[in-house]
Amino acid sequence: MTAPTVSHDQDHALRERAKTVLPGGMYGHMSMRRMPDGFPQFMARGKGSRLWDTDGNEYIDFMCGWGPIVLGRQDPIVEAAAAKQMAEGDCLNGPGPIMVELAELLCDTIPHADWAMMAKNGTDATTACVTTARAATGRRKILIAGGAYHGAIPWCTPLTGGVIAEDRAHLDYFEYNDIESLRKAVDAAGDDLAGIIISPVRQELARTQEPATREFAQECRTLCTKTGAVLILDDVRCGFRIDLAGSWNSLGVQPDLAAWSKAIANGYALSAVTGRESLREATQTMYVTGSFWYSTVAMAAAVATITQLRETDALGRMRAAGEQWRAGLLTLAASHGLTVEHSGPVQMPLLQFQGDVDSKLAFTWANEAVKRGVYVHPIHNGFVSAAHTPADVDEALDRIDGAFATVAASI
Amino acid sequence: MTAPTVSHDQDHALRERAKTVLPGGMYGHMSMRRMPDGFPQFMARGKGSRLWDTDGNEYIDFMCGWGPIVLGRQDPIVEAAAAKQMAEGDCLNGPGPIMVELAELLCDTIPHADWAMMAKNGTDATTACVTTARAATGRRKILIAGGAYHGAIPWCTPLTGGVIAEDRAHLDYFEYNDIESLRKAVDAAGDDLAGIIISPVRQELARTQEPATREFAQECRTLCTKTGAVLILDDVRCGFRIDLAGSWNSLGVQPDLAAWSKAIANGYALSAVTGRESLREATQTMYVTGSFWYSTVAMAAAVATITQLRETDALGRMRAAGEQWRAGLLTLAASHGLTVEHSGPVQMPLLQFQGDVDSKLAFTWANEAVKRGVYVHPIHNGFVSAAHTPADVDEALDRIDGAFATVAASI
Repeated sequence: MTAPTVSHDQDHALRERAKTVLPGGMYGHMSMRRMPDGFPQFMARGKGSRLWDTDGNEYIDFMCGWGPIVLGRQDPIVEAAAAKQMAEGDCLNGPGPIMVELAELLCDTIPHADWAMMAKNGTDATTACVTTARAATGRRKILIAGGAYHGAIPWCTPLTGGVIAEDRAHLDYFEYNDIESLRKAVDAAGDDLAGIIISPVRQELARTQEPATREFAQECRTLCTKTGAVLILDDVRCGFRIDLAGSWNSLGVQPDLAAWSKAIANGYALSAVTGRESLREATQTMYVTGSFWYSTVAMAAAVATITQLRETDALGRMRAAGEQWRAGLLTLAASHGLTVEHSGPVQMPLLQFQGDVDSKLAFTWANEAVKRGVYVHPIHNGFVSAAHTPADVDEALDRIDGAFATVAASI
Repeated sequence: MTAPTVSHDQDHALRERAKTVLPGGMYGHMSMRRMPDGFPQFMARGKGSRLWDTDGNEYIDFMCGWGPIVLGRQDPIVEAAAAKQMAEGDCLNGPGPIMVELAELLCDTIPHADWAMMAKNGTDATTACVTTARAATGRRKILIAGGAYHGAIPWCTPLTGGVIAEDRAHLDYFEYNDIESLRKAVDAAGDDLAGIIISPVRQELARTQEPATREFAQECRTLCTKTGAVLILDDVRCGFRIDLAGSWNSLGVQPDLAAWSKAIANGYALSAVTGRESLREATQTMYVTGSFWYSTVAMAAAVATITQLRETDALGRMRAAGEQWRAGLLTLAASHGLTVEHSGPVQMPLLQFQGDVDSKLAFTWANEAVKRGVYVHPIHNGFVSAAHTPADVDEALDRIDGAFATVAASI
């Protein structure tokens, strides 16, 4: 089965220009430099579950802006709330009433949240959590799961150019879902343990997604409570997709602090920290601030987003779309004689081919999918939104069939 | 002269609610907790040079959102560009063509800029600069002027709760505008000197603003060139207000890297790093990224902002308004028998009263000004925009006369 011919002329012209003025032609997670040639570098527009590149190619989108889009692009209620706020003013000399409203909404929605602070990046939130844990306890050690992603500044970035040894002083590592390794790290930290930071799901590139087990999540809670350390849940990626009460809520675990971003405002730049009463005072010894951290428009978008997630069946629709997507992909793979694993919460899945240790088949599959108008990533988990209708998923499955055929033919 | 009676009922009601859900009732630079009672905590809207609090009180604004507003609030050209981009999509799966356009515009506008990278916060940009300097040189020491503000994460924050000693390892300090102290710090760093980070103007709370002298700025340049270290200009606060070619351009000094934010997009959340060709490669060893760093709307606003600054007399109008403001304030102060200093670039001035060591008079003055509808800060530098017309400044001077009278009466 031959791949369709897709034009990338506009994209290539933009890439040529970008080579001069953007390091590497592009940088960070949206750099397509190491991706196969089916992937466009630049995007033009989006609506609902769809997006279009600069050459006019249409995609049914299973990346959702790498997470932020949870209600679908250009959600009319979110856009109306943002536009209304924009007409009044965004970056004023003080926060708007919407900041109080958003903080109240977060505290009302999230069981552990007695207060909230707003920022712009996920990294702002995870960094503020770590700093708050140290400020509150007067201790230094922070435990992190090896390989986990918590942001992109020196203490946490996966690419270590310019990072000095001291940037990671007093960080120690354990193995996700391995209670023994966690206990060992807690023991080693001793009375200098400030906190544990952990994501609700083990989500690493090209690795089977692994939700935390109930036992492991509860052990994180127990150990922090016992030692007086702070349990930080990094809900930046999973937050507002699985459970509004926090992604470990169904495991019976509430953290002391949580970091939120991505889906919080359906694409508007915002992040947040929520915390327990006992940690409120510690934040007063820190300077938690940024030029745009009080801007109202993203907060209005967040209130509209979270309210819709609370008051409609958006989470249910998103889960159903994810289940339909998973079931359909597994059926398609089997029909082509391919054994695959589709891991992680259905709202944030990753497809892997059996025995594909170097991800070669995954790259082929994703590239053929993108050429056929289905935007998936070969090795990073995808994202489903509440705007993905059953018809969208059916159409995507129809389009992606040829990608499995190409993989099957390549083996 | 009695202060006018101003209602803050709405503001007080919001403050009561905020006490519960926001640590300290508010945090960061927009917390009014330690400000006198004339200052509203919450703002409702803004237009041009004016803003209104939630009780409907109007202010002629000399803080400009703490810097971001450079063309005035709700600038029609910027808003139109942002709205047009928003209608297409903001947070897509890849950057839009506008990212290339913005990077080209920055490289065309700023002499040292061979490339640009975009982020959200000023702190993102200063941190990326420091990391790039270390990545490029393979050295560790960064020199900083004592008391300078370069952001709000552990390596640079002025409030040190939760900061551990290692966060500031390999930072060393010199005295602004003191060539001898700089040379001493450079010597002490020896062959481990990665870079010097410095703001174009010494701008500290409640301290006479002090632009860099030509000799000092040139010595920064010379020492970096001689030692192979990286000169980082933190133009987050001053950038796009004084000189589009960089705030040390008139001193004949171009840095190797610069950090930009605040005024870059007239209030939209954006920051940028620009750098020389020799540092391009080093950025490829770092993970410079964030969930919203490729979002198009703020970039469209930045292109519209910078283009207007380039193609109109906006910078000239802003300077003229600053000069009129300075001259008027000095005349008013003298008319009340008060000796004051109005320091810093006229676009970012600070008023201080002679002998006012504890800033008591400054607080009285600012409070009375705010009560009279002129928004100024007692100890932080203010900001003037291109939307401040001669009539606006006249009206502000007229309104603020009573604030000087109150200060004079209090001595």
